[in-house]
Amino acid sequence: MSTIAFIGLGIMGSPMAVNLAKAGHQVIGYNRSPKRTAPLVEAGGSPAESISAAVKDADVIAVMVPDSPDVEEVLVGEGGVFDNARDDALIIDFSSIRPDVSAALAKEAKRRGFRIIDAPVSGGETGAINASLSIMVGGDVADFDSAKPILDAVGKTVVHVGSNGSGQTVKAANQLIVAGNIQLLAEALVFLEAYRVDTDAAIKVLGGGLAGSTVLNQKAQMMLDRQFNPGFRIDLHHKDLGIFTSASREVGVVTPLGAALAQLMASVRENGDGGLDHSALLRGVERMSGRSPR
Amino acid sequence: MSTIAFIGLGIMGSPMAVNLAKAGHQVIGYNRSPKRTAPLVEAGGSPAESISAAVKDADVIAVMVPDSPDVEEVLVGEGGVFDNARDDALIIDFSSIRPDVSAALAKEAKRRGFRIIDAPVSGGETGAINASLSIMVGGDVADFDSAKPILDAVGKTVVHVGSNGSGQTVKAANQLIVAGNIQLLAEALVFLEAYRVDTDAAIKVLGGGLAGSTVLNQKAQMMLDRQFNPGFRIDLHHKDLGIFTSASREVGVVTPLGAALAQLMASVRENGDGGLDHSALLRGVERMSGRSPR
Repeated sequence: MSTIAFIGLGIMGSPMAVNLAKAGHQVIGYNRSPKRTAPLVEAGGSPAESISAAVKDADVIAVMVPDSPDVEEVLVGEGGVFDNARDDALIIDFSSIRPDVSAALAKEAKRRGFRIIDAPVSGGETGAINASLSIMVGGDVADFDSAKPILDAVGKTVVHVGSNGSGQTVKAANQLIVAGNIQLLAEALVFLEAYRVDTDAAIKVLGGGLAGSTVLNQKAQMMLDRQFNPGFRIDLHHKDLGIFTSASREVGVVTPLGAALAQLMASVRENGDGGLDHSALLRGVERMSGRSPR
Repeated sequence: MSTIAFIGLGIMGSPMAVNLAKAGHQVIGYNRSPKRTAPLVEAGGSPAESISAAVKDADVIAVMVPDSPDVEEVLVGEGGVFDNARDDALIIDFSSIRPDVSAALAKEAKRRGFRIIDAPVSGGETGAINASLSIMVGGDVADFDSAKPILDAVGKTVVHVGSNGSGQTVKAANQLIVAGNIQLLAEALVFLEAYRVDTDAAIKVLGGGLAGSTVLNQKAQMMLDRQFNPGFRIDLHHKDLGIFTSASREVGVVTPLGAALAQLMASVRENGDGGLDHSALLRGVERMSGRSPR
């Protein structure tokens, strides 16, 4: 069992830290707003008042914060991980950030003697609570192997996909596909409603053929019910599509659906829906079609 | 057991007619090129030399031809179904055509006293051979109920979705979602290959999370292997996206991914890939990105 510092106890980080504590690890949690440590403490973990206090005795340092600048601040910022961690610490960055930033941070971490992997997750709050996340890992195989028991305590499909930053690259592709599936379903549902088709029956038959998807299984009924409580917020998916479009541009791969989706997600956000679940892309289709979103 | 005329014994129609014969129905098959009747005859059916000969004693008339003008020709053309069928015949149109054409043909069929449903299918050649098709049915409930035993002999998910033409509307939405899933996967795979990620591992982890889909399960490996034998041809999916974009335009629903996909499918076709499987959308991403398709 390890001593784990867990930095970032949000919607995803909190249940992940709880699952690590339940698995028997000694978990020390840090969050900018300290009251978020309560569930971890209840599960047997302990709170820390600063990053330095959290990491100073940790074998493993887990990070789960929203965006690239947040990870940079946590790792290289004053009073951050690099200044305070033990020399042999293994850093696991669960955050979803830019692959190039992730690779650059890994390079700096290794220069200072730390081990580090990027391990972004998919599966949402439910997956975090049930420890059934998909985890896509970039880094050295030896570091992946060391981290595997920790990752298995929070995830179900845990896969090494390449060198540092590669986990982020796969996560960016994941977010493209998820956004696309939601938008496709949104266009299909508004279209079928306009033709007064039996949408419940349509969902059943669409799911049974080549149009079937996890998004259809999990989101179609909520979209028909106009139930858009997050879940995964438009604001965060907007950030992720920005990562995908710049990463595809940098590597010279032209991705027309990626570009269109980044714009459609941005439009929903600019219309004030950034705090809704990403299935609220349906509201964008309604707006574009001159229908008042319900 | 019924006497069934089956008109159109192509990649889909032939195995469907065979399955009806195997289920104990008396199946009389007609195809423009007569040699296509061989598998049906081997399964106990009989060949007809004309549509009129096929339909004159049939309780049920099944049609499976490529496009709207083909169905019009078969039904209302000289020597066609309407001129030769028994008064009480039930017409099942399995073809994928325009919803408005389907509804207009149904109106005319009913005016002449026939019963008629539209019953387009999803599931491809494999689904046709295994009698595991998804079938989306438009028409009167009583006619759906009469047709149900026939439909169950060729399909697994058989659903009534609304009035005449509604089956075609749902099929159009199905084809939107399928094309979209293939294009999303194509953009993701070319992107991941460019970053030299372990694509086999990536597919595994993508499939385990919210990005999972039937397209990913069935097509990802073939796309990585550049194996584009049809399957379902680009030419036919091009026709289907034309149906979706005009139907969405007519009902006043704005579908940006539908529009983009219709153009991307058209581009692959104009580059000479119309005869390949629709997963060859990947070749379009490669071309746009200045890479020679393999």
